[in-house]
Amino acid sequence: MELDFVDWLSNRLPPHPAVKIGIGDDAALVDLPSKQLVTAVDLLIDGVHFVSAEHSPERIGRKALAVNLSDLAAMAARPAGALVSLAIPREGACSLPPSDLAKRLIEGMLPLAEEFGCPIIGGDTNVGPGPLMLAVTVFGEPTGCGVVRRNGAKQGDAIFVTGSLGGSFVGKHLDFTPRVAEAIRLHEQVDLHAMMDLSDGLSLDLMRLCKASRVGAMIEQDALPIATAAEANVQRALSDGEDFELLFTLAEAEAQKLIDSPPEPIQLTRIGSITDKSDIRLRHTDGTSEPLNATGYQHQ
Amino acid sequence: MELDFVDWLSNRLPPHPAVKIGIGDDAALVDLPSKQLVTAVDLLIDGVHFVSAEHSPERIGRKALAVNLSDLAAMAARPAGALVSLAIPREGACSLPPSDLAKRLIEGMLPLAEEFGCPIIGGDTNVGPGPLMLAVTVFGEPTGCGVVRRNGAKQGDAIFVTGSLGGSFVGKHLDFTPRVAEAIRLHEQVDLHAMMDLSDGLSLDLMRLCKASRVGAMIEQDALPIATAAEANVQRALSDGEDFELLFTLAEAEAQKLIDSPPEPIQLTRIGSITDKSDIRLRHTDGTSEPLNATGYQHQ
Repeated sequence: MELDFVDWLSNRLPPHPAVKIGIGDDAALVDLPSKQLVTAVDLLIDGVHFVSAEHSPERIGRKALAVNLSDLAAMAARPAGALVSLAIPREGACSLPPSDLAKRLIEGMLPLAEEFGCPIIGGDTNVGPGPLMLAVTVFGEPTGCGVVRRNGAKQGDAIFVTGSLGGSFVGKHLDFTPRVAEAIRLHEQVDLHAMMDLSDGLSLDLMRLCKASRVGAMIEQDALPIATAAEANVQRALSDGEDFELLFTLAEAEAQKLIDSPPEPIQLTRIGSITDKSDIRLRHTDGTSEPLNATGYQHQ
Repeated sequence: MELDFVDWLSNRLPPHPAVKIGIGDDAALVDLPSKQLVTAVDLLIDGVHFVSAEHSPERIGRKALAVNLSDLAAMAARPAGALVSLAIPREGACSLPPSDLAKRLIEGMLPLAEEFGCPIIGGDTNVGPGPLMLAVTVFGEPTGCGVVRRNGAKQGDAIFVTGSLGGSFVGKHLDFTPRVAEAIRLHEQVDLHAMMDLSDGLSLDLMRLCKASRVGAMIEQDALPIATAAEANVQRALSDGEDFELLFTLAEAEAQKLIDSPPEPIQLTRIGSITDKSDIRLRHTDGTSEPLNATGYQHQ
């Protein structure tokens, strides 16, 4: 399969001025805008991150690229390119034979690659025993303000999220928009202390951010922007996973700037504050609080 | 598994001056020596590229990085870093539970990463239904002479290979040394027209090089450096695959330079010439020749 697929791919991928050598050689060669490389990889497995019996190959392919773009967004980095590895089952998947499946996975990525200035520049495709797996590597560059890490949260910081939380499994986990533009705009407008994307649910990801920053947090239950799909269920907003929204912290004065002149059209919600405690707590409507256990979704 | 493994990994990986952000954030940040990025990815699947029931996790991990370094060698590029994706079977593999398996795969990569100046800077590890799969992405930089492509072969060029061919399946496919240093030394010493690494067998890979360069070739059967493990079998030298040696072409005068002052300790063998025909032929001892069919190993 591979020779034909590589021929198809090298014709299908649009030319890009920065891509000096694309598909078809032993490696790709790209001109980067900067000598600083921001890079991440995510591996998606059938039955774990998507279900090929239910989801179209285009949506699966799109998700494989989108989760990586979300990683770049989490650093406030600008995408520059992607490499795509496909492990295609011999029997095919999504009711398609191997070659058609591979092509349609790529077709699902291309509109997103175009939209985010992230050309597919290379990859590797192998036919094996299955299941279908996709590993996409993205790389990009920091903006002039540098990257935003998850370890910079400080006591007294306000905690914000973009968008709404929970219920992603209804479909958003396949069709979400990576918050690349939003992250870069926020990073230009205010001094972000820490940021990450929400992949495994707010409670688990916030625990990671707090652990990396050696701080605690108090989350206000009433402030949580619960997605309609989560049916007003706080627990789902905290734990459903795959929201792919941004979680970030910044000083109180900077937070006020955001609240006073919100960078439309980003939906921003302040959900709590960073504390000097070692735990993360959830404050209920009645003012009582309890420890927020990290009950987020861990892919098994 | 992932949280513990990430903790282990971030402690286990040696610090590197170019790696500003390594394991543990949403993406890695690396200082590159150049704005030109050379990058490749290879995906290895249990039962296709290795056999976990027979091979140790260290050898499997080593191979996953080595095949990628061989891709950089094929471009005469210098390695700068790697990202590692692991799909770990829930039941484990290599008689190991998931967490131990993941660690020992990484342990197998580390000596090679150190030797080739190619630090592991990030990755993604997921537990799923199996089989074991490894996708390693490498990136590097061109030397001052630029990269060497596979599409530059010219009529009259001499065709060379490094090392010996065939019989890799006896063990070399797991333990080979990527020809990174050799490629860079050759590229400095002579004007290489075209180069690639031999992953699928000389006959198939030479067909790819000739197709990319729009030329033909005449291979001299008696000149082929047949590996001991291939037991003097010409067909195996032509088709066994996974030699991970370099195949390159250069003008006759440059070839003479190599023959007159061979860059020790590289074993170099001239195996034929580029022709203006559209086919690839194999000349036998008696002077007769026949078309060389691309019978190389295609992983299924």
